[in-house]
Amino acid sequence: MNIVLLGSGNVATHLGKSFSNAGHTIVQVWSRSILHAKDLADHLKAEAIDQFSELDLDADLYLVSVVDDAIISVLEQLPSISKIVVHTSGSTDMSVISPYSKEYGVIYPLQTFSKAVDIDLSNTPILLEASNEDVLDKLKELASSVSKNVQYCSSEQRVKLHIAAVFSCNFSNHLYAIAEKLLSESELDFDLIRPLIMETAQKVMDKLPSEVQTGPAVREDQLTLNQHRQQLKNHPDWLSIYNLLSADIIK
Amino acid sequence: MNIVLLGSGNVATHLGKSFSNAGHTIVQVWSRSILHAKDLADHLKAEAIDQFSELDLDADLYLVSVVDDAIISVLEQLPSISKIVVHTSGSTDMSVISPYSKEYGVIYPLQTFSKAVDIDLSNTPILLEASNEDVLDKLKELASSVSKNVQYCSSEQRVKLHIAAVFSCNFSNHLYAIAEKLLSESELDFDLIRPLIMETAQKVMDKLPSEVQTGPAVREDQLTLNQHRQQLKNHPDWLSIYNLLSADIIK
Repeated sequence: MNIVLLGSGNVATHLGKSFSNAGHTIVQVWSRSILHAKDLADHLKAEAIDQFSELDLDADLYLVSVVDDAIISVLEQLPSISKIVVHTSGSTDMSVISPYSKEYGVIYPLQTFSKAVDIDLSNTPILLEASNEDVLDKLKELASSVSKNVQYCSSEQRVKLHIAAVFSCNFSNHLYAIAEKLLSESELDFDLIRPLIMETAQKVMDKLPSEVQTGPAVREDQLTLNQHRQQLKNHPDWLSIYNLLSADIIK
Repeated sequence: MNIVLLGSGNVATHLGKSFSNAGHTIVQVWSRSILHAKDLADHLKAEAIDQFSELDLDADLYLVSVVDDAIISVLEQLPSISKIVVHTSGSTDMSVISPYSKEYGVIYPLQTFSKAVDIDLSNTPILLEASNEDVLDKLKELASSVSKNVQYCSSEQRVKLHIAAVFSCNFSNHLYAIAEKLLSESELDFDLIRPLIMETAQKVMDKLPSEVQTGPAVREDQLTLNQHRQQLKNHPDWLSIYNLLSADIIK
């Protein structure tokens, strides 16, 4: 497939590289910032553009991968094209594209992407939705060229999936970050806690998290809970998080 | 070493098995419940007891591994012994043992233990504290027989470490459990989110979590944040957690 990337962020970067490695051609990379566009385009042997007037109109797929707030604005500026237009957003309904294209869909890779961290997409679930069966087949073929785990997912399911991803990924990482700061205050190295983080994730690879909860809250060990609250009294925000999550575990 | 285990919970079970596999002898397993004591003692070829009067007084080490609320009560019932007494608690000061024994210390394995999940302790940090250098040397030798990562840690540092462990392990697992319930409500399989959980943990194995935060909160993507809040309106507790953690990420 010939693909135009609209966006140069984490998701655009990882999808672009994976599609390119799988033999597809990234024709252009558009970004509001020509420097960002160039940065990614150079990796992909694509043309960098920052004007919609320069858009190649002969590609097979236009992949809009920008922050959710900017999707509509990008779609509004697209010249009228009779090719497939997709977005990559977890929480944006597919139907937002319908005023701008007859053939459209969603390619949502359920993964956490940082530019600095290489990811093998082959085990990453890629969730698809499309305006018709023909488009869905084309998206399936494209997604299957980079992942073994390609599934259909409706817009309603996708937003639930995105919220679940926020809890289990973004929020977990923030809890790791709180741990990082707590350790640093006591001159303890973050290395100490890395095996625990890995085992906690590893444990739910073949068990359900609701079956393997451990710690003072699930044991209703009030002595320890109160001691921890006492220790957190200089960090009111972390104390609130501690109390709310402990109460939710006990419930 | 000849070791008496006082307690038969997750930590006692995993430490007992590891010490036994490393060639130490578990002489007895005491538990308030003789059935629990027998269950573990049978694995370790040890004697099961539920009375302090039956305690073997000739062991080298008495390892108190019970919930924090019960440590003092166990110590109070120990007959007067001139051997090393240790506890395994993250949040209990070592000094609580001093009225009951002249030689004492702490063996704190920083890991999440479930009876059903086997763990290789060799990479698990084991944090030690002792009443004197001689006891510390003995505990070091014992701990080093099961782990390559043995370190000294004061009681003050240990409680901070325990709180960091609660955030990054117990609370993360609870966030996974919320994700599990959200997915189940939308008839989505927990399998979908497993690669994301693993990658989130994997990412902080060589980076710091504060450097790799992703998601709508850190992007201050208000459109997505508000949509998620709308979706969570029937789950007020999860909504509170969502708001508190998002606000703490943005800050």
